[in-house]
Amino acid sequence: MVELIAFDADDTLWHDMPLFQCLVEKFKALLREYQSEELIEKALLETEAKNLKHFGYGVKGFTLSLIETALDLSEGRISPSVIREILELGKEMMGAPVELLPGAKETVEALANKHKLILVTKGDLFHQESKLARSGMGDNFSELEIVASKDSRTYEAILKKFKVRADRFMMVGNSIRSDILPVLALGAYAVHIPYHAEWAHETVQEKQKQKLKLENRYIQIENIGMLLQVAIKIESNHFCAQASEQSEQSAADGQAATP
Amino acid sequence: MVELIAFDADDTLWHDMPLFQCLVEKFKALLREYQSEELIEKALLETEAKNLKHFGYGVKGFTLSLIETALDLSEGRISPSVIREILELGKEMMGAPVELLPGAKETVEALANKHKLILVTKGDLFHQESKLARSGMGDNFSELEIVASKDSRTYEAILKKFKVRADRFMMVGNSIRSDILPVLALGAYAVHIPYHAEWAHETVQEKQKQKLKLENRYIQIENIGMLLQVAIKIESNHFCAQASEQSEQSAADGQAATP
Repeated sequence: MVELIAFDADDTLWHDMPLFQCLVEKFKALLREYQSEELIEKALLETEAKNLKHFGYGVKGFTLSLIETALDLSEGRISPSVIREILELGKEMMGAPVELLPGAKETVEALANKHKLILVTKGDLFHQESKLARSGMGDNFSELEIVASKDSRTYEAILKKFKVRADRFMMVGNSIRSDILPVLALGAYAVHIPYHAEWAHETVQEKQKQKLKLENRYIQIENIGMLLQVAIKIESNHFCAQASEQSEQSAADGQAATP
Repeated sequence: MVELIAFDADDTLWHDMPLFQCLVEKFKALLREYQSEELIEKALLETEAKNLKHFGYGVKGFTLSLIETALDLSEGRISPSVIREILELGKEMMGAPVELLPGAKETVEALANKHKLILVTKGDLFHQESKLARSGMGDNFSELEIVASKDSRTYEAILKKFKVRADRFMMVGNSIRSDILPVLALGAYAVHIPYHAEWAHETVQEKQKQKLKLENRYIQIENIGMLLQVAIKIESNHFCAQASEQSEQSAADGQAATP
């Protein structure tokens, strides 16, 4: 039986990337007089990647990277009013309404009746707590785990903390690199719900995706609404496996008893 | 017996405020041509207070507030190169060396032999994890809890999570508002190690401080090195209380047995 189900938050329970994309569009519009859209996007991606080691994930660090990119691209000619607009865009994003993915609320509520649910997510505690509260789903989660990186060690620590065996743990998320691979490596279940867009720093190779399909603890679904069926199926598989083990055992016992 | 000891991090285990003060000094020097030092400091404090609801605590939000203050104070005349210098100050602060308070390392190591130790701190997970790693004390702590606010509910959740009774929990910190009052309200031990400076938003009244001294679970010490003695004293008090309870009990039993 799956005892603990962990969810990624952004782009698994609620939309997140469209907000970033929208912010990037506004940013490009602000800098249009200095550079082409293409160059702005390239420069931003570079600054972001370079600053990850200073800032980690989250909107505050992203806003600082936007300001730095604006300074770089304008070669110091940027108007202070543009910097102010970038600051306001960051604040706007921090407070943007939380738009749930279709089916997220119903599925989470139904699963919470039978399983312990937690959130495991990168980003900023302050912002994720605020989003969870505004999502209206907070009561269904026992814990909000903000982690600096999502690797096998992180998930191992979570299993230890909740005293759950790997084969009774399921992670649900949209990122193969962060939500799927490190979880499969531990022998746990990983449910992949691809989001229609993907972060550049989360992309994995097509070859790796093909290999994943051979893993029997890897489950890919189209939308979060299908998660309930997955949980039921895993449970009935466990049940069948146990039942067939038992019947094999009694058959063996029977044979042994036969002279 | 005290089973779980929680430490605040900044200005309890390592210096933090001096870094902020140093950053503020550099910031004032950058803006000297626009305003008096006094006005700069006042404006910064106001911007910070106003932005807490958007950004929470931590260096990234603080850096965004510095940029906003610079835009405000220069009335839009700020040079982009100054904004860039502020960005660099923020990054410098994120990577600044961790300077332990005298006695912190030895005390934490000695306590870790007998007690479960955790960190409970506000701020940014990414930055606090990095500071803890650089402090060289990481192995002594079972958990790093980053919390959005330090109120009784937060501490209650921690007691529940670690399955510890309030009278077996001790919080060690420098802020009366965040580390002491909410912990005493739960009936746990609170050890106050005043830092030589205090945050404006953490200040409490003298009257409140006087009242605290009447609480028997409030202990104030001068430096973290004295914490070992505190832990031993609490334990021997528990022991004495138990022993005297037992001897009263046996005296009562003896009396009852006497015809």
